[in-house]
Amino acid sequence: MTAEPRVAPPDQTPLDPALLALVEDALARTLREAELAEDLRAACSHAVLAGGKRLRPILVLECARAVGGELADALPAAVAIEFIHAFSLVHDDLPALDDDDLRRGKPTCHIAFGEALAILAGDALLALAPLVASRSPVAGGRIASEVLRGTVAMINGQVYDTLRTFPHGLSDSDRLELVHRNKTGALIEASCRIGAMAAAASADHEERLARYGQAIGLMFQIVDDLIDATQSAEHAGKATGKDAEAGKLTAPAVHGIDGSRREVERLGCEARAALEPFGPRAARLSALVDFLAQRTK
Amino acid sequence: MTAEPRVAPPDQTPLDPALLALVEDALARTLREAELAEDLRAACSHAVLAGGKRLRPILVLECARAVGGELADALPAAVAIEFIHAFSLVHDDLPALDDDDLRRGKPTCHIAFGEALAILAGDALLALAPLVASRSPVAGGRIASEVLRGTVAMINGQVYDTLRTFPHGLSDSDRLELVHRNKTGALIEASCRIGAMAAAASADHEERLARYGQAIGLMFQIVDDLIDATQSAEHAGKATGKDAEAGKLTAPAVHGIDGSRREVERLGCEARAALEPFGPRAARLSALVDFLAQRTK
Repeated sequence: MTAEPRVAPPDQTPLDPALLALVEDALARTLREAELAEDLRAACSHAVLAGGKRLRPILVLECARAVGGELADALPAAVAIEFIHAFSLVHDDLPALDDDDLRRGKPTCHIAFGEALAILAGDALLALAPLVASRSPVAGGRIASEVLRGTVAMINGQVYDTLRTFPHGLSDSDRLELVHRNKTGALIEASCRIGAMAAAASADHEERLARYGQAIGLMFQIVDDLIDATQSAEHAGKATGKDAEAGKLTAPAVHGIDGSRREVERLGCEARAALEPFGPRAARLSALVDFLAQRTK
Repeated sequence: MTAEPRVAPPDQTPLDPALLALVEDALARTLREAELAEDLRAACSHAVLAGGKRLRPILVLECARAVGGELADALPAAVAIEFIHAFSLVHDDLPALDDDDLRRGKPTCHIAFGEALAILAGDALLALAPLVASRSPVAGGRIASEVLRGTVAMINGQVYDTLRTFPHGLSDSDRLELVHRNKTGALIEASCRIGAMAAAASADHEERLARYGQAIGLMFQIVDDLIDATQSAEHAGKATGKDAEAGKLTAPAVHGIDGSRREVERLGCEARAALEPFGPRAARLSALVDFLAQRTK
């Protein structure tokens, strides 16, 4: 895999604009059609439609494509996982948790709509997600359950990260992996797995895409920690150095800067290896590994 | 139906102690076996296991029994609906919503565990509920979806009730019905419907039990409003007169005390009529109508 280009060619940008357009359209349509009180719809729409990389829904669609599935069949799963991501951001931003006023340069949901409606909007997005997932034409029930399992794991990760109450006897390195695997990793792995499910992938292919998801999920979080430790706030577009200040368990704190970079390298190899059987259909998933490894903001 | 005894005989107490024991055991077991960080499990257990009438899970089991189903088959659905009820109480009690410190004489979840963990515990219970429901041996997918539809409706009801932002052009009476149908009614109707589903009921029987649930759900809320308007706090075991003080839309405010009592009477007839084809197997569901109509606390 060493011949893999380190910079994606123009027609292989990792986040395919055509898929992004499909995702944005499906998100907006699903919110429009949901049976929601109008204030609640406005708060949910603010949370979901105010930008974002759409990494998770794109992973769903790319994994479906890698195993030869129809993109349209994977859209409910893609919307569901982005609703979960959006719900988690709305609740994480609340005063009792991270207490953030801004996200992507816009007021967070509780700043724009008040805390009561923000709590209820997060709840509504969490409840809508599996309902939307269950409408997948292929494997709807399995996809909904996988979305929910990922959600529970993510909430566990949030508890470990925010409240720092770990099972007894874990080393810092084990604790860090527990946070990373759950907080970000579980939902990214679930994204890849439900993409495979929506395309009726074989069990072997589903496991390979799940392994790919595990590897890039961990990598994503380590790169996040590296950005916080090494980049200026101006460059990153968000406050940096926050983790060290908060005494948080991070990859640079546990493995050092160089050790963390080596770990990113290793996980990249693991992710690319998992994609081997899929050939050119997984080209963008492969390009995404480099994109995630090299991002600096 | 006028021969219906107004007071349930001893062997027909509306909340069957044998079913209550089944429910308590299933709730505790499900929480013990769930993959939750230990702090999160403690907060969820506080929310779910600290008492409560268990009206919704009992309705699930009684509706399964009314159509000749196995109680064991309906337990996952019963646990799921009680998890949703518990999640809604945890989030409703938060400072940004009702700001309650006590529930059933015990500290609310955020008082006992802090606001961050209470928000996350509510989220976890909401995510676990459809996952548990989907494990029903009969109609798992349909039951999970119905639980989620009821949840979204309940959240809408909460928005209407708390934030009082209604669709344009509704009369007070229409607004009241919108609040009642969604806030309490939707989950009670869902309880009856999923009990029927878990017992593989016919479409006609499922609709009848859903109608029964709609009627007693509305009745439940009107009786709640009557208790607030007419009983002393000492008798009711909670603060009363709160609705009028808050200028809330209530049944006595819209229909008067006598009008509200007539409405309870009418809904009782409707509920009992829906049970007709089920005969003695629905005896406790019928006794429950009187129990709910006559409660004064």
